[in-house]
Amino acid sequence: MDKYVVGVDIGGTTTKIGIVDRDGNILGQTVITSRYGADEAEKFMDAVVDTVSQLAEGKISLSQIVGYGVGGPCANYYSGTIDNPINLPWAQGRSVPIKEYIQNKTGVPLTITNDANAAAVGEMMYGAARGMKDFIMITLGTGVGSGIIINGQLVHGHDGYAGELGHTIIERHNGRPCGCGRSGCLDTYASATGVARTAREWLATGNYPDSPLNKLQEITSKDVYDAAMAGDKLSIEIFNFTGHLLGTAFADFVAFSAPEAIVLFGGLARAGDLLFKPIREALEKNVLFFWSNKVKLIHSSLKESDAAILGASALAW
Amino acid sequence: MDKYVVGVDIGGTTTKIGIVDRDGNILGQTVITSRYGADEAEKFMDAVVDTVSQLAEGKISLSQIVGYGVGGPCANYYSGTIDNPINLPWAQGRSVPIKEYIQNKTGVPLTITNDANAAAVGEMMYGAARGMKDFIMITLGTGVGSGIIINGQLVHGHDGYAGELGHTIIERHNGRPCGCGRSGCLDTYASATGVARTAREWLATGNYPDSPLNKLQEITSKDVYDAAMAGDKLSIEIFNFTGHLLGTAFADFVAFSAPEAIVLFGGLARAGDLLFKPIREALEKNVLFFWSNKVKLIHSSLKESDAAILGASALAW
Repeated sequence: MDKYVVGVDIGGTTTKIGIVDRDGNILGQTVITSRYGADEAEKFMDAVVDTVSQLAEGKISLSQIVGYGVGGPCANYYSGTIDNPINLPWAQGRSVPIKEYIQNKTGVPLTITNDANAAAVGEMMYGAARGMKDFIMITLGTGVGSGIIINGQLVHGHDGYAGELGHTIIERHNGRPCGCGRSGCLDTYASATGVARTAREWLATGNYPDSPLNKLQEITSKDVYDAAMAGDKLSIEIFNFTGHLLGTAFADFVAFSAPEAIVLFGGLARAGDLLFKPIREALEKNVLFFWSNKVKLIHSSLKESDAAILGASALAW
Repeated sequence: MDKYVVGVDIGGTTTKIGIVDRDGNILGQTVITSRYGADEAEKFMDAVVDTVSQLAEGKISLSQIVGYGVGGPCANYYSGTIDNPINLPWAQGRSVPIKEYIQNKTGVPLTITNDANAAAVGEMMYGAARGMKDFIMITLGTGVGSGIIINGQLVHGHDGYAGELGHTIIERHNGRPCGCGRSGCLDTYASATGVARTAREWLATGNYPDSPLNKLQEITSKDVYDAAMAGDKLSIEIFNFTGHLLGTAFADFVAFSAPEAIVLFGGLARAGDLLFKPIREALEKNVLFFWSNKVKLIHSSLKESDAAILGASALAW
């Protein structure tokens, strides 16, 4: 009988759940809400397990499921818990033992890690990093996340929280305040929200009266992308600025683990050359000579809608 | 019959060679010159092997030697070569196949890596990091070197050159020119030569007429240390400045691999609290909240005279 694993991607609003085979084919998938209340962690976890039963029904037996892989915010690989993320009421101010609870309920082993780590493992098993043993996954979404693969293994570090490259400091002088309490984090510039923040800051100078972004009430990174593609100079400059900071940061990451590639994933990475070109330029300008023209810069090859589930499921194998 | 390995530490001026048992006891050690000429790489390697025979003579049989571990500048773990280091004439402008040559000559497997990596492995096997699986070794000598241990393994990266943390950029605005061709590298500030450079720069401002350092023709980091211990304000400020930069850099290293500890080794690390106190302060001030008061900052516990040989020999086991 074929074996399957469950991939669970816990987001701030919704949780994606899928049953996946060894080759990365998704047998079935669905989405449930993540919005459970402060005392409803058990309800949420029960809903995950029930959803798996429904997905399996009529297709496979539950005994064919040999593992759960879970990606989520503030998830700790060693303790198997989700620890006090800002965006999940049922885990706020506490540590929710997802691994223990679901393992006890299902009898199936569960592996959990943060979402960017899960994406890195997914990329290694099914995506653009297949066959690579050393690479860094950078997710450019609402925030900047990272998952580091060294010698074919995910880096968890001593406490399970390794790979917070969005919170390395890219600007040490008057850097932007970050939600983490410090200033100048890469996250504050190079995330989708960072790009929108740059747009608002630069528009406020009054130096770009002709930019179509002036007409928008709320600016998103997608607006900046659309305007750049339509030739707006401000928006093109914003992507150059953002890419330059990313490439500069990557040069230091390379000095750490000498990766074969840096893989970019997430909404902002879809900007393609608008972002990749300045990243590549800044990376080559700033990297130590050992690595000149050596480190590949590639786009994730996972279908974005499937990536979360595939990444999480890859943990389980 | 007991088994032994050979530890070889290739420095710019001398090469230390020792025979070491499993517990890190040095059966015998000696020093030969590293100053061989441009076409004398083979002569140098022959001298290493001959020296081992002399060290073994009358104590153990050569057949008891089961491995060579070599630490050296620009050494590559994968290729087994020393590649064009600035300070070794016999390897300049070429790649010297030390692994292949000595293995062929002795029939014994050889492992080579850069000196800071060797020190990290030595620290894990015999020193302050015994029992640790995740730590970063920082060597503060003529330059700033690093060896990164993740999950009990040395990080080599895709090409064998990982762990060049001395060449991450700590000052992005008008940083000091570095020998690597870029500016603002940690190495230019936090090495022994960086400390002396800070002293010269600050004295040149004329703001420290009372410092005893003014009387010296050439200033070394040891002079700055001695003056600081004697109460010289300038010298104490220099250690604060240097420690602050190191701690700030360490905060970003922690976001990468979440180490249990950062282990400091080398001449400058002997400055003790003069340096450790500002490092600790800057690390805690700059580290992401996950790691507040969690990362140990410790001094190498290897005897400095033995460390190079022990570190290199540890590679071989």
